[in-house]
Amino acid sequence: MSLENTEEHAIRHWWRTSIIDMKPGQIEFRGHPIQDLIGNVGFAQMIWLMTRGDLPSKAEADLFECALVAGVDHGPQAPSIAAARMAATCGVGLNNVMATGVNMLGDVHGGAGEQCAELYLDIAERMDAGVNLNDATRDGIAHWRETYGKIVSGFGHRFHKPVDPRAPRLMAMVREAASTGTVDGMFADIGEAVQAEIGRQRGIEIAMNIDGATAVIFCELGFPPPLSRGLFCLSRSVGVLSHGWEQMQQGGRNKGPMPPRFLPLYEDKT
Amino acid sequence: MSLENTEEHAIRHWWRTSIIDMKPGQIEFRGHPIQDLIGNVGFAQMIWLMTRGDLPSKAEADLFECALVAGVDHGPQAPSIAAARMAATCGVGLNNVMATGVNMLGDVHGGAGEQCAELYLDIAERMDAGVNLNDATRDGIAHWRETYGKIVSGFGHRFHKPVDPRAPRLMAMVREAASTGTVDGMFADIGEAVQAEIGRQRGIEIAMNIDGATAVIFCELGFPPPLSRGLFCLSRSVGVLSHGWEQMQQGGRNKGPMPPRFLPLYEDKT
Amino acid sequence: MSLENTEEHAIRHWWRTSIIDMKPGQIEFRGHPIQDLIGNVGFAQMIWLMTRGDLPSKAEADLFECALVAGVDHGPQAPSIAAARMAATCGVGLNNVMATGVNMLGDVHGGAGEQCAELYLDIAERMDAGVNLNDATRDGIAHWRETYGKIVSGFGHRFHKPVDPRAPRLMAMVREAASTGTVDGMFADIGEAVQAEIGRQRGIEIAMNIDGATAVIFCELGFPPPLSRGLFCLSRSVGVLSHGWEQMQQGGRNKGPMPPRFLPLYEDKT
Amino acid sequence: MSLENTEEHAIRHWWRTSIIDMKPGQIEFRGHPIQDLIGNVGFAQMIWLMTRGDLPSKAEADLFECALVAGVDHGPQAPSIAAARMAATCGVGLNNVMATGVNMLGDVHGGAGEQCAELYLDIAERMDAGVNLNDATRDGIAHWRETYGKIVSGFGHRFHKPVDPRAPRLMAMVREAASTGTVDGMFADIGEAVQAEIGRQRGIEIAMNIDGATAVIFCELGFPPPLSRGLFCLSRSVGVLSHGWEQMQQGGRNKGPMPPRFLPLYEDKT
Repeated sequence: MSLENTEEHAIRHWWRTSIIDMKPGQIEFRGHPIQDLIGNVGFAQMIWLMTRGDLPSKAEADLFECALVAGVDHGPQAPSIAAARMAATCGVGLNNVMATGVNMLGDVHGGAGEQCAELYLDIAERMDAGVNLNDATRDGIAHWRETYGKIVSGFGHRFHKPVDPRAPRLMAMVREAASTGTVDGMFADIGEAVQAEIGRQRGIEIAMNIDGATAVIFCELGFPPPLSRGLFCLSRSVGVLSHGWEQMQQGGRNKGPMPPRFLPLYEDKT
Repeated sequence: MSLENTEEHAIRHWWRTSIIDMKPGQIEFRGHPIQDLIGNVGFAQMIWLMTRGDLPSKAEADLFECALVAGVDHGPQAPSIAAARMAATCGVGLNNVMATGVNMLGDVHGGAGEQCAELYLDIAERMDAGVNLNDATRDGIAHWRETYGKIVSGFGHRFHKPVDPRAPRLMAMVREAASTGTVDGMFADIGEAVQAEIGRQRGIEIAMNIDGATAVIFCELGFPPPLSRGLFCLSRSVGVLSHGWEQMQQGGRNKGPMPPRFLPLYEDKT
Repeated sequence: MSLENTEEHAIRHWWRTSIIDMKPGQIEFRGHPIQDLIGNVGFAQMIWLMTRGDLPSKAEADLFECALVAGVDHGPQAPSIAAARMAATCGVGLNNVMATGVNMLGDVHGGAGEQCAELYLDIAERMDAGVNLNDATRDGIAHWRETYGKIVSGFGHRFHKPVDPRAPRLMAMVREAASTGTVDGMFADIGEAVQAEIGRQRGIEIAMNIDGATAVIFCELGFPPPLSRGLFCLSRSVGVLSHGWEQMQQGGRNKGPMPPRFLPLYEDKT
Repeated sequence: MSLENTEEHAIRHWWRTSIIDMKPGQIEFRGHPIQDLIGNVGFAQMIWLMTRGDLPSKAEADLFECALVAGVDHGPQAPSIAAARMAATCGVGLNNVMATGVNMLGDVHGGAGEQCAELYLDIAERMDAGVNLNDATRDGIAHWRETYGKIVSGFGHRFHKPVDPRAPRLMAMVREAASTGTVDGMFADIGEAVQAEIGRQRGIEIAMNIDGATAVIFCELGFPPPLSRGLFCLSRSVGVLSHGWEQMQQGGRNKGPMPPRFLPLYEDKT
């Protein structure tokens, strides 16, 4: 190998990837020519292929789509959606509108699914080591709280009381997929055990929310926790786009958080 | 109506939407309860419902998915992907990584499909007014160039010469959908007429690229031009997520655009 | 030059810059070693040096600072500030909070100063060609409106009526700087002529706003129009940071645009 | 108070702030009318007023400016600068370019100053409790590493070896300010003690870098740690703007991380 090649190799290696291989006139994703994918795999399967490297079965893709469909939006009360709608009136492109919304899906919001998946996987690991479900759940929750605090991500909802309508439907889909052998069902058990244990500890039942339920699905399907956040961002991007576009059609210039006649209250601290 | 209600109404009206309706324990999108959507519509159908208000037929959704699948990624040479990968090494969340990439899909990149759709629709309008395809195409291109300049968005590719492998496959899918009556096929004709006309004018054939081909699909399916950009952003978000996640697994801290031993060249202008 | 050097040069040239020159242990900006700048030039002078290449006189820097000070904030009614405050409750870093706010300073908001500077410079060019101030102003406004529409950026304010308190103070500072020869004063004349002409046309006086006044300063000091936007973004970043930080101290999780008990109004369009 | 007023108060209270007070024709920051600030306080003083609530003395502002000047840029090798320059070729506004860069100043990069300030303050607290400087430093470092890992933020530089030219100059400015009583000098002692202790432990001297030195200044001046990050973002925004603007003048469309003829290396993992 000549020195020139070494140089070139260093640069090409800096940007190495296993996702895409290109030559002029040729594009392959994870070993599949793009023309073989178009028309043969759906969008959800493509998301799976790109993030994981393999293609899911039809049944796996169906369950996967349930999670993607469930998380698209929670309306303009959510700061990410409100910010996107405001951005849409400030003279930026729809791409900037979408980035504004997605950028805000941080640890508190978009991170809930990731944190919940970490809890589920920790409980599963305890069970693999021989602990029974109830003990593993109790210990897993205790351990999780040392890192993240008392409120367990994925459970409880400040608006949807007593039930988040997305969770039972998603859990039913998991149970159905487990009944046909598409998934194991262990994380559905774990999710429900966490829900029961939190309820027991506080003395009143708690709802599983969208993050708790989608984390069950992503864990069942074998996605690592950070992708729980990434996939939620992808799903919620749909809502961000839809609201940004609706706002563009409604019009407005420099839309603030409330009608202009309401002035923020000034609190003198001097 | 009491004054209090007027006040409350003003605030609620400020954030009015036709996309989502919520009550505690209840979520409806465009009139469909979320539990009826989960498990019954795919992710692509959900995207359509959210952005348009109605649900597509299965055949429409299939063609729609072709466009979404085709645009997911073009590798780390693309600035949006490279920036996302660099962001992934800077200590920010995966949501911030995704926002970094999507934010860069501006007029030059993400806007190409939108601009191309505008051209197609302008040609279609000329034909509706009685002009034949060839004349409408020639006049439409001339008119478009007054706004956007000589290079027609959607045609030609600096890397994929002579053919962008995504375009012929996408066009074949449109033709197939037209043959079964799913779409009309008029925008496929228009797209090919634009390609032929540009080739004629420059004296050498030009390739239709991904933006030109997906704009055909989005126009056939009735999406307004700005959504061509928005839907491309959604599709490319998949690549942004995949590369960001791959980079996180590769590791690195504050990854620059080239290996650290290459210093930017200083050009003295003092 | 060997092939290896050619290769390396190509890569280094790809990232060429006249702003910074680095060697291990050595940093120079625009030819000035960093250790000579620290303690000897103020922050505003540094901004000037970095964006323009030369150092301003003390008097120029003083006028420049007036514009930077004037634009720092306009409170949480502004979408950029509200979005930043909401982001601060979503579990992202202060850098992401700041980016969220600055990202929204688009054509409608942050672009006003840039568009206004374009108008001023066009009028100045007409005067250089021999047209008198009044005619140049009238023609300049007419020409500007062909591109940007009826509302002239930099004039009028939906909240500060009849006077934006920042504008007269800024204009007084320009006049003072003109009286000592720091600047010419021509753009102050032009700004006031534009204000008078718009007032004449609508039959009622109009206020010059912050964008109109800072554009006068940036033009007097020789900044090109796009930097009017960039410098405004820098100035407003201070407000974005301050509000993001205040919000972090106030606390809150996923702060929406209005108190949670106000639900967005659902408008049925199915 | 009527019900209507209660309603209005709730909304105004939701956006309460101590930073800005507005009425039509009137703007006050932290109790100071804007017209009294313009022309009387510099940009750095304004930043202090906005983030802290009070105005600094001239001597405090001078030291503060040293830190702001020192951090403006580290060239296109830095991912934030490279990303901003790439964004500038993608057809987005200069505001979006700036946001792209600032968004990437996360925990690994922009967060270093914040983490370093936390260490300094922890050591100071141990000293307040009666521990001597050396022991407090050793214990503080050990404690800090439990949270953040072995590499102490603020010390060492992968490029500037053996000395980061910004640090000694900044430390000299702190010492000078301490000699006139502007600051105490305790954090300068602490910073140097940390540097010495790390060197002792690894058996070879280590350099203090820009984050370590600016954290000394921010701590001396009484800024809380998160503002170390925020102020760094403000400072680096200057470099982001300058490079984005230089790139816009250089031109280019969809600039990638390396010249187009270098293809990312494909690593087959199927």
